[in-house]
Amino acid sequence: MKIAKLSALIAALVAAPAMAQQWETLPDTPPTPKDNPTTAAKVELGKMLYFDPRFSSTGTISCNSCHNVMLGGEDNRPVAVGVKGQKGGRSAPTVWNAAYLSVQFWDGREPTLEEQAKGPVINPIEMGIKDHQTLVENRLKAITGYQPYFEKAFGKGDVVNIENFAKAIAAYERTLITPNSPYSRYVKGDKKALTPQQIAGMEKFAKTGCTSCHSGPAFAGPKKPLGEGFFVKFPTFTDNPYVSKYKLMEDGGRYEATKKEADKHLWRVPTLLNIALTAPYFHNGSVKTLDEAVRVMAKTQLNKDLSDADVADIVAFLNSLTGEFPEQTMPRLPATPPSVIADIEE
Amino acid sequence: MKIAKLSALIAALVAAPAMAQQWETLPDTPPTPKDNPTTAAKVELGKMLYFDPRFSSTGTISCNSCHNVMLGGEDNRPVAVGVKGQKGGRSAPTVWNAAYLSVQFWDGREPTLEEQAKGPVINPIEMGIKDHQTLVENRLKAITGYQPYFEKAFGKGDVVNIENFAKAIAAYERTLITPNSPYSRYVKGDKKALTPQQIAGMEKFAKTGCTSCHSGPAFAGPKKPLGEGFFVKFPTFTDNPYVSKYKLMEDGGRYEATKKEADKHLWRVPTLLNIALTAPYFHNGSVKTLDEAVRVMAKTQLNKDLSDADVADIVAFLNSLTGEFPEQTMPRLPATPPSVIADIEE
Repeated sequence: MKIAKLSALIAALVAAPAMAQQWETLPDTPPTPKDNPTTAAKVELGKMLYFDPRFSSTGTISCNSCHNVMLGGEDNRPVAVGVKGQKGGRSAPTVWNAAYLSVQFWDGREPTLEEQAKGPVINPIEMGIKDHQTLVENRLKAITGYQPYFEKAFGKGDVVNIENFAKAIAAYERTLITPNSPYSRYVKGDKKALTPQQIAGMEKFAKTGCTSCHSGPAFAGPKKPLGEGFFVKFPTFTDNPYVSKYKLMEDGGRYEATKKEADKHLWRVPTLLNIALTAPYFHNGSVKTLDEAVRVMAKTQLNKDLSDADVADIVAFLNSLTGEFPEQTMPRLPATPPSVIADIEE
Repeated sequence: MKIAKLSALIAALVAAPAMAQQWETLPDTPPTPKDNPTTAAKVELGKMLYFDPRFSSTGTISCNSCHNVMLGGEDNRPVAVGVKGQKGGRSAPTVWNAAYLSVQFWDGREPTLEEQAKGPVINPIEMGIKDHQTLVENRLKAITGYQPYFEKAFGKGDVVNIENFAKAIAAYERTLITPNSPYSRYVKGDKKALTPQQIAGMEKFAKTGCTSCHSGPAFAGPKKPLGEGFFVKFPTFTDNPYVSKYKLMEDGGRYEATKKEADKHLWRVPTLLNIALTAPYFHNGSVKTLDEAVRVMAKTQLNKDLSDADVADIVAFLNSLTGEFPEQTMPRLPATPPSVIADIEE
């Protein structure tokens, strides 16, 4: 072990410029809160809950509607659509590898996947259920077919509640990870995993300064304990046409959650894993292509104008961050009892 | 074989009253048009297409949104919700075992699953794509990741077209069948598959006259060639309070498609398989419970007032028509290219 570590150190010291950057890959398992260890029973239940549209007032919107795991973990729309065709204020972030992020939502207002999962169900423009008690009584408990799955996951007794609803969904989401991207295989030693252009793009990505924020195994910043976010101001440089063109100042970011002046336009640094699959880009989904997103970031965050060749190389590198998506079986959802049929908003 | 047939004949002749009814079970494979034999490659592609929300104008509605295979094959809503929160005119019929029906849609206006699949994508209040050419050019061909799947299913060349889109979806739908219901196992000889109440209900179901329409393996009428429907007037008896209470005369049924007077209030007899999972009931989803649906049918179609005990027994029997749902893997959908990101309606 000591020799291996020493070899790694030497390798790092003598490496080419791009290698001076500490390139990390996803740990095999994501950070998990002590009070919610992942179990097969929780994952099974969580997957059912994740795909169940009956946890929306109209019975039409599930977690998967906006965070579509069959796609890149979101909906490829500027902003998501909730019940009754209502549009959200921000673009749906990907659920893939969200387990590796130390805070949740664009503004990092929740510390864990568990806390995140409680939000959209009672957001009037997302899933539109009145409150958590209504969710539990009129839907979760009313769909009696869920009871045995909750008991299998959490033990006998009064286990159908909002905390366990959130725990099960979070446990499922901790299985939504995409290992073995070309980037990841390259860093682990498979030097043929990246094309020459991707390797050039990797070096430019670091040299341009992208890694000053997009570092770490998920390209979402340095490792932090759950609940502690890595926030950066966006846009940092505002004296450029992108700011008005893409309306980058209209949303106060973290300020909207905290109402603290210091949090104005601060955002959680989003992951870049599978970024090729999650257009359109930014919190408002205003930028439709990855090359334009790269140009906008270089200008607004680093005050740099990239050449077309630089952009093409960096985009080629970003394409190498698409991982392997695990095969999943579809859940079967329990039958809808008459009380739920009656409760579903027409 | 001849002796077996003779035995079956004798068994039928000496059977108890309920057995005088010819009780059939689903054939192992559904009827399939000669020009669209089911293949694994078509089924794989068809499942991808079925779950892909990018074949709606807003990128939010897939076939599965309204015909949810994780539930009873529909949405448990009175009427379905399409793009921009628009409500449909009729309740979404189940996709499970639709392959056994000789005509499609409530009014039987299409002869095959292939023809059915072409409708909702260009219906302005369902998936809202302008026309088939737009679907093919702006979405199907634009999502270039589909090309190899179409070629695998249909051969090399110009195979990405609306006909093959429909063929693949239909091929997938022909795998959506639910064998081995308690009813089915009972008819095949497992006399313990039904409870005594369910057996009583089965006899009452026949004796009341329900089987005069709900006969055949799918309880949707006698076997007919593809394209030839079994249509019945609903309501037949209109002098009862149900007709106005549940607005049963507001929709002209088959007349809306043909504009022939003789087709007024004619409907394709719907399947009763998995009926316990597909509330609310009827073309307008106006009846929320199965027992009320049984009462309404007995009165409007047979002019009979059933006792509560009769209703309970028949409902118990109908519960035995829920079959086994095959385990399915989720499809992975190809990446969304910039042109489709730009084409998705905000």
